[in-house]
Amino acid sequence: MRAAVMRGDTIVVDDVPDPVPQFGQALVRVLACGICGSDLHFLRHGRRMAELSAEVDTGGPMAGGPALDMSRDIIMGHEFTAEILDYGPDTVGPPPGTVVTSMPVMLTMDGIVTLAYNNDFPGGYAEQMLLSPPLLVSVPDGLDHRRAALTEPLAVGLHAVARSGIVPGDAAVVLGCGPVGLAVVAGLALAGIEPIVAADLSPRRRELAAGLGAHVVCDPAERPPIEAWREADGRRPLVMFEAVGVPGMIDRAVRDAPRLARVVVVGVCMEPDTFNPFFAIAKELSLQFVLGYEPLEFNRALEVIAEGKVDVTPMITGVVDLDGVPGAFDDLSRPDLHAKILVEPGGADGPLQA
Amino acid sequence: MRAAVMRGDTIVVDDVPDPVPQFGQALVRVLACGICGSDLHFLRHGRRMAELSAEVDTGGPMAGGPALDMSRDIIMGHEFTAEILDYGPDTVGPPPGTVVTSMPVMLTMDGIVTLAYNNDFPGGYAEQMLLSPPLLVSVPDGLDHRRAALTEPLAVGLHAVARSGIVPGDAAVVLGCGPVGLAVVAGLALAGIEPIVAADLSPRRRELAAGLGAHVVCDPAERPPIEAWREADGRRPLVMFEAVGVPGMIDRAVRDAPRLARVVVVGVCMEPDTFNPFFAIAKELSLQFVLGYEPLEFNRALEVIAEGKVDVTPMITGVVDLDGVPGAFDDLSRPDLHAKILVEPGGADGPLQA
Repeated sequence: MRAAVMRGDTIVVDDVPDPVPQFGQALVRVLACGICGSDLHFLRHGRRMAELSAEVDTGGPMAGGPALDMSRDIIMGHEFTAEILDYGPDTVGPPPGTVVTSMPVMLTMDGIVTLAYNNDFPGGYAEQMLLSPPLLVSVPDGLDHRRAALTEPLAVGLHAVARSGIVPGDAAVVLGCGPVGLAVVAGLALAGIEPIVAADLSPRRRELAAGLGAHVVCDPAERPPIEAWREADGRRPLVMFEAVGVPGMIDRAVRDAPRLARVVVVGVCMEPDTFNPFFAIAKELSLQFVLGYEPLEFNRALEVIAEGKVDVTPMITGVVDLDGVPGAFDDLSRPDLHAKILVEPGGADGPLQA
Repeated sequence: MRAAVMRGDTIVVDDVPDPVPQFGQALVRVLACGICGSDLHFLRHGRRMAELSAEVDTGGPMAGGPALDMSRDIIMGHEFTAEILDYGPDTVGPPPGTVVTSMPVMLTMDGIVTLAYNNDFPGGYAEQMLLSPPLLVSVPDGLDHRRAALTEPLAVGLHAVARSGIVPGDAAVVLGCGPVGLAVVAGLALAGIEPIVAADLSPRRRELAAGLGAHVVCDPAERPPIEAWREADGRRPLVMFEAVGVPGMIDRAVRDAPRLARVVVVGVCMEPDTFNPFFAIAKELSLQFVLGYEPLEFNRALEVIAEGKVDVTPMITGVVDLDGVPGAFDDLSRPDLHAKILVEPGGADGPLQA
């Protein structure tokens, strides 16, 4: 099959062996797969991530898998919808033709392993992939495969909001309106939070944030987001969501946050970061770091998309085929152009669907 | 009166003007005043603290006071017991002779200001000081002035435990058994937490931690505290209390903490600090920074000391008079020698009372 392969520090489109489903595995045809900021991080910092993971056992369900071999091919892509083609021997599941999504993990005899960031199980930047039948979630009738591919990133936002403990009566500031920040805005709107202040340098992303429920949007180059919050509210308990994930953002947040605020760190910063604990101490702040989501949050994300409670369509700012993946990675490094680009390995033949 | 004065970056014993109580002020004679690690920090980093405070408005009740002038005398000491001598004009309060303590703040026409870290209101390293009558708390009969002087540092521990949200069924690791770490251990024991694992390089401090309720003590030079916890329990949700407060401790804590742990930062680190957010993210940790206490926590600290629920006597490892203050500051910079040293400005004439 054809796939967009991470080989060393580049993405190349190449022919790779077809996956063959074994006992307990479904073979699926990838319909659409979103490109995640984590994939750009991984392409740049994968070796460092593998080193850090080896340095400290971070626990969790996926810590048991085999170590990544960065010198071998890796096929990324963990935000997918797919169509069932076939099953391995003695394996059952939804009938072929069913459109599904899944959390990007595989159940194996060696435990739960992550898909996509894996030498053995390809992700969605390929024509076909293998999935675990017990984890398959059918995409409801009437929901197209493109919007359904936003399930995974939306789940990240729902999880961050749930983990933050924010409740109606609190206010929120979201720093960064990439796909993660936008998913947080959507999750906050679903939770009935008001006001939601969203900040991003890109006018397009600010517009998307407003569409997903931000009450105030703010260009941090023009005024500090915390001032926009003070003007809009300034009295309610504040939860700040850091969804940028570059060094210096935590120091910025602890300097700006008001006394007793909670800072939820959703942005994944891969480098050592320096901050002044003095400010966090003097204001008794908390920093809650979050990652991923729970299975029920994944299912709920699909549900709220299907029910139209979150309109993810405007987040899809581009669709490419496999040959377009390297160029899409380049485009996404300039954050003013795009929110989410989808890869359609079967050929991106249709216009964006409303 | 005589006082141990912070003048530049040294402590000198000198004659200073007697404080004269104004309307709304009580004049008291200091009976005992503990030397706090924050005072050592302040002597070393006071200028930097003043700069940082000016850089960011940290809010809170005491942010409204006048800026500190580091070129003028400062009389520190905020963990005191004292005897009422007199009042300013038209001011009432407990009768002269009453032994009292107080949160180290003054109510003034300009708002609430901190005592001791203040050019105008001396702290307890002096023969006399001024207090605000509405804040005075009488020391119960039968409780000596030395143990009562531990009210303030114990309140810090009770506050850290309360703010952490720890509940019976959780486990605790306390990194550092200086007076703050010991107060946290005492607070955890009062809250019924088990096991409490306490770590310190000093055998004497480990012994004090065990006396205050730590179930396991551990020398971090011999084995990582987290291993001691794993051996003792390793299954309950874990709350780690960082009570050392030097650069690098936060990175150490986020490397060692198990998945979903909470890290409560009680140690006051005055310098920029570097850590790897990757570990905190991958394990979904939270960092809760805490400082000070609430008025009710202060009162409760005095109560549990008076009722004998926390025996603070072994924490008092030295008593000096005013002339002994500079030497005591030197001694405290070698943390294996002491936990709490009390200053008795009237002369440290008695032995340590049981």
